[in-house]
Amino acid sequence: MTEQPSRLEVEDLQQNLRRVREGIAAQRDPAALRAELDRLHPADVASILEALPLEERLVAWHLVNAEREGEILLELSEAVRESLIATMDAKELVAAAETLEADQIADLAPDLPEEVVQDVIRALPQEERTLLRAALSYDEGTVGALMDFDQVTVREDVTLEAATRYLRALDELPPHTDQLFVVDRGGKLRGTLPLARLIVTDLERKVGEVMVPESVKLRPEDRAEDAAQAFERYDLVSAPVVDLITGNLVGRVTVNDVMDYIREKSAETQLAEAGLSKEEDVFAPVLDSFRNRWAWLAINLVTAFIASRVIGAFEGSIAKLVALAALMPIVAGIGGNSGNQTITMIVRALALGQIQSSYWTKLIAKELGLATLNGVLWGGLLGIAAYLLYDNVALGGVMALAMLLTLLLAAGMGVVIPYLRARFGRDPAVGSSVLITACTDSGGFFIFLGLATLFLL
Amino acid sequence: MTEQPSRLEVEDLQQNLRRVREGIAAQRDPAALRAELDRLHPADVASILEALPLEERLVAWHLVNAEREGEILLELSEAVRESLIATMDAKELVAAAETLEADQIADLAPDLPEEVVQDVIRALPQEERTLLRAALSYDEGTVGALMDFDQVTVREDVTLEAATRYLRALDELPPHTDQLFVVDRGGKLRGTLPLARLIVTDLERKVGEVMVPESVKLRPEDRAEDAAQAFERYDLVSAPVVDLITGNLVGRVTVNDVMDYIREKSAETQLAEAGLSKEEDVFAPVLDSFRNRWAWLAINLVTAFIASRVIGAFEGSIAKLVALAALMPIVAGIGGNSGNQTITMIVRALALGQIQSSYWTKLIAKELGLATLNGVLWGGLLGIAAYLLYDNVALGGVMALAMLLTLLLAAGMGVVIPYLRARFGRDPAVGSSVLITACTDSGGFFIFLGLATLFLL
Repeated sequence: MTEQPSRLEVEDLQQNLRRVREGIAAQRDPAALRAELDRLHPADVASILEALPLEERLVAWHLVNAEREGEILLELSEAVRESLIATMDAKELVAAAETLEADQIADLAPDLPEEVVQDVIRALPQEERTLLRAALSYDEGTVGALMDFDQVTVREDVTLEAATRYLRALDELPPHTDQLFVVDRGGKLRGTLPLARLIVTDLERKVGEVMVPESVKLRPEDRAEDAAQAFERYDLVSAPVVDLITGNLVGRVTVNDVMDYIREKSAETQLAEAGLSKEEDVFAPVLDSFRNRWAWLAINLVTAFIASRVIGAFEGSIAKLVALAALMPIVAGIGGNSGNQTITMIVRALALGQIQSSYWTKLIAKELGLATLNGVLWGGLLGIAAYLLYDNVALGGVMALAMLLTLLLAAGMGVVIPYLRARFGRDPAVGSSVLITACTDSGGFFIFLGLATLFLL
Repeated sequence: MTEQPSRLEVEDLQQNLRRVREGIAAQRDPAALRAELDRLHPADVASILEALPLEERLVAWHLVNAEREGEILLELSEAVRESLIATMDAKELVAAAETLEADQIADLAPDLPEEVVQDVIRALPQEERTLLRAALSYDEGTVGALMDFDQVTVREDVTLEAATRYLRALDELPPHTDQLFVVDRGGKLRGTLPLARLIVTDLERKVGEVMVPESVKLRPEDRAEDAAQAFERYDLVSAPVVDLITGNLVGRVTVNDVMDYIREKSAETQLAEAGLSKEEDVFAPVLDSFRNRWAWLAINLVTAFIASRVIGAFEGSIAKLVALAALMPIVAGIGGNSGNQTITMIVRALALGQIQSSYWTKLIAKELGLATLNGVLWGGLLGIAAYLLYDNVALGGVMALAMLLTLLLAAGMGVVIPYLRARFGRDPAVGSSVLITACTDSGGFFIFLGLATLFLL
């Protein structure tokens, strides 16, 4: 389990991967490539597969030792994993899944055909089957979904000497075993015994005297995000997962799973911001990419269409003063940018639990203050520019005032949208950028063209 | 060093923090609050400080035990840390820094006044001073900046028995000690000895026989991002940092520092996407927030102004057919969205090393194919909508064709911009969204209005 990559320095590792990848692209001697892939860490094989176009990827996949397919599938991004699973038949998939542990099979299960999952469950020994059923029952985004079952347990009434003998009999400890979990006869968690403490303590003492009785405990239903924050704050390597009612130890979470979770979450956020539904295989067929991207384009089409109809309502004004057409995108654009700044900061602060309910008015006052400053500054600048371009003082004035009002709208909505969504139990992050941009686009056009119609025509 | 939070379940922890925070806001009995803050983990105190407006934050800060100020400052976000450092005099700052270890002082140093750093250096014992100088010499974003000096070393020719006796003499092992580093007389790294292996192995054997001779090694000059990838791929808890030339062990990197680095990086990316220069204190004074946000607004003002001038060049056409003014933002907007999808995916794939130089033509072909599909679909739809709205077939045709061409432009630039930046050694991620939006805005207006001028007027 504690495999090491075949090379040592990070830079060498990267060069090595490049070499193997190029070998596959150049269709070098398959036997040599197979041997080379066999020597690589599963995560390295996964990174090679992700960097190959579909056809070469399948060639490489066929070179992989069948016994390692399961662990490599686990390391792949979802999109690339799907592209490989689509080429495997049920028998191969069952064989691959059977090389994995229950919690790993559960991670893979959403991407497997239902009958494969059923076959795997049937083929497992009773104990593993129970664990897999448990692992499958937890929702994504919960501690239950991050948990594994590799915890090593000891009793409090044994000596450290006896505990050490027991560990020796295990031959090898599961990865990320930085502490043993102390349980009573019924399986209830009593405390933890860090290996570092076990090593430095007199072996004649009892586990119960040496253990840490109180440590961070997770429950399967806790949000994975909260667990991640606990790992970060308290610098944990592993943490026990305990049943809420019985207090029994049901599993553990380790820092590597937390780190994967953090990376995945951050990738998802970044991709969602840009309108990609999920991580995309760079080499995906056009239709797959289309499926990943169309929804966002459609939503934007609708909001752009609404904004266009707002402009349409003022076509008479534009016909009379065509300069309005050239100036209006500036107002809407800067409004959108500044609204996005506000909403991004608020959404982040909400996620970090930094905003107490009593401070919302303080926040909105601050953002409106900043918008006023920005409005006077940039609005003034653009007002002067508009005046100089079109030699029309009133147009300059309307431009400046429209900028100020649009920035105030953007700041207000930038606070109010996440506030309302948090209030009504929605995730304030989802689609926040679309919402604010829709407001500032239509709002900006309406304010600018409306003011122009009032004062200029 | 291995402090535990005072409460156990994650949910309890959060409730507890809420309670203390509210106590401070309500100005409850200072002595009780002081005691409560003293019991909290430094990271928890930091999170409370981050969630308080400036005035209340300073009240809480004065309740913090002076000896803990250093470790709490370390846990704070940069913006909030600065807000507190600004209120402390040189003597307090030196006292706070002196409670920290060399690598921690180095992390804090960029936010401290130069004379404070000098005072701290002078006050340190010789050995610590050398370590601090070393730590200060590494650039942000390198392994050197992530590294600490808490590695525990052993010699290969001693028995495990002797090694264990040595560890017992240390009383407590540094946090995240999952392995000992085996060095020779000159300090050269020979291998590592995982604690889990030490525990399960016969104590009469020699370290040299039991150690793992080859494991991932980092160098101080390696990119922190590469180290983070190694930690993720190989599920490391700690890794040795070795001098390139001498092969000597100079320090170690632990998973908690890597996790902090990942979180910080991901926050930075997310904030940069929205045009915030850095993490912002939600309760920052208006002027501080202005400083954090003005640069992006100014850049967008320039690009919006250029786009406005493109429109200005076609004012004659708009005057003749005012519908153009209402339709043009749709073309530019959808172009921008789709360009952002492409560039985000490519930039991510580049960062993950998924794009080999031989595949760029494949990628551009795929993106242009997808743009054609999108162009025909959404362009057709909008063409029909334009025809129905304005009862003008030619206008519908121009709309559809302009959408198609703008999406092709967006796809092309979405691949070419990161390609060129990677080629010339720039970070392809920085400002990619601004660049592509500038292209698609001005380009979209030009294409649509140009086609309209050619075919409609």
